[in-house]
Amino acid sequence: MRTLAQNARLALLLEVAGTPKPGNVDRRRDLEELRFDHFLAGTVGTERGLELAQEGEPVGRAFERAVEGMAAQGGGNTQFGALLLVVPLVRAAAGSEPLSPGAAEDVVADTSVADAAGFYRAFDHVDVFVDEPSADLEPLDVRRGSDAVPALEERELTLLDVMERSVPGDDVAREWTTGFERSFTAADRLAEADGPATDRAAAVFLSLLAERPDTLVASRRSESVARAVSDRAAALDERDALETDPDAVEEFADDLVERGINPGTTADLTAAGLFIALENGRVTV
Amino acid sequence: MRTLAQNARLALLLEVAGTPKPGNVDRRRDLEELRFDHFLAGTVGTERGLELAQEGEPVGRAFERAVEGMAAQGGGNTQFGALLLVVPLVRAAAGSEPLSPGAAEDVVADTSVADAAGFYRAFDHVDVFVDEPSADLEPLDVRRGSDAVPALEERELTLLDVMERSVPGDDVAREWTTGFERSFTAADRLAEADGPATDRAAAVFLSLLAERPDTLVASRRSESVARAVSDRAAALDERDALETDPDAVEEFADDLVERGINPGTTADLTAAGLFIALENGRVTV
Repeated sequence: MRTLAQNARLALLLEVAGTPKPGNVDRRRDLEELRFDHFLAGTVGTERGLELAQEGEPVGRAFERAVEGMAAQGGGNTQFGALLLVVPLVRAAAGSEPLSPGAAEDVVADTSVADAAGFYRAFDHVDVFVDEPSADLEPLDVRRGSDAVPALEERELTLLDVMERSVPGDDVAREWTTGFERSFTAADRLAEADGPATDRAAAVFLSLLAERPDTLVASRRSESVARAVSDRAAALDERDALETDPDAVEEFADDLVERGINPGTTADLTAAGLFIALENGRVTV
Repeated sequence: MRTLAQNARLALLLEVAGTPKPGNVDRRRDLEELRFDHFLAGTVGTERGLELAQEGEPVGRAFERAVEGMAAQGGGNTQFGALLLVVPLVRAAAGSEPLSPGAAEDVVADTSVADAAGFYRAFDHVDVFVDEPSADLEPLDVRRGSDAVPALEERELTLLDVMERSVPGDDVAREWTTGFERSFTAADRLAEADGPATDRAAAVFLSLLAERPDTLVASRRSESVARAVSDRAAALDERDALETDPDAVEEFADDLVERGINPGTTADLTAAGLFIALENGRVTV
């Protein structure tokens, strides 16, 4: 029997191993400065933080610790977004079996200003790509890291409040406001898919990308690039290309890597789905 | 800073990710019934056992626990041999910095009959391929698992005694009798090689295979098959084929997978070398 924290680690590993996952590091592809081995080391580094979540420690503290450990490798940010989903889900699973959207909602509703401070402190450990904030939110720019904590405390913002302010525009934050809707959808699809868990991860990644433009791509590039990527994923998903024309998906994957287009939010959702599916016994390895 | 046990996990992950590793599961290849995802889950399962070794618990107990956790996936034996090297090395590293052959020798010299019993009990958790024992050693056939423990106690065999009786014929056991000679050689070569840790792992795997016939191949198939595989590896290694003619190594890898020839002992030594190199700061990720 794997522990909650172990299932979380396995979810991170299965996510990065799933191939093809267009635009992302996968079992067959590295990005220019972000490699598969960085994700392996990043996963090992998350251990203590995930265990804190399992032990019922506050989400912000567990998240910060997980990110700190994740960052102890040379590739930079590997799983920040995935951890922002998986840490509250581990916390929820510690008190609810099976893991349910309601349990996840309770955990995020319970977050405090101290949790928000932990989230901000996590940015001290690693560079994460984020949008420019609007002028009135500049004091709360996450890139200020722990320097933003006083502003956070003054405005009495909980971590859920912070996440609510990032929607729309960040589909990881959006999960916090929707009972982790797409994470649970991903878990359902993973359960229904065929083959090894890594093949299922690739199929579900494509279906998620087909459905909604990736918000990391939208932030880094543009809304229209993100939409075009999604449309192409949708066309492939519709004709079940992973089964019927795998070369077309491989080509899509190579093309995105070449153009430096990285749908990382969709990968984060896939990791969250894998954790839920493993935890609820709906995917086995 | 990763803990000893975390470096051990990372070594197992980097080993399986290294590609091409002819005849073994690697980042690009699965075997028929043994897949990459089984190795990922196997690694996650080793956590508690490796932590016991780090905490200074007896080698036999830590090994049995690591194997029990490793076996909690559907692929069967993934890292039994690697753990038989890495567990005593973690134990040695807990008391010696840098990790040295002498420290490893002290750990194995200190093993007891109880450690041997732990080793035998590990066979209760997973099917491991081993040679038929000679008639006088039948009561000590490891496939008897815990049923062999009384015979072990009667003959007062320590785990080092058991390992000594497996040499020649098992190059994992041989490491126990040579101060982990080839494991430390692998670590030196990993340090001298170029590129990401996974590329180094592939290069060092090939050099080890070039040097000595793999004892798992010799047991499962024959001495002559093992020798032929080694000769082919030597020819590739000599002309630095991973650099100069990578397709030839890929072809070798595909050919071995197709013929079901699995130089697993050489992969175990590579994992041990990775642990030593990570622990002594000679390879970074």
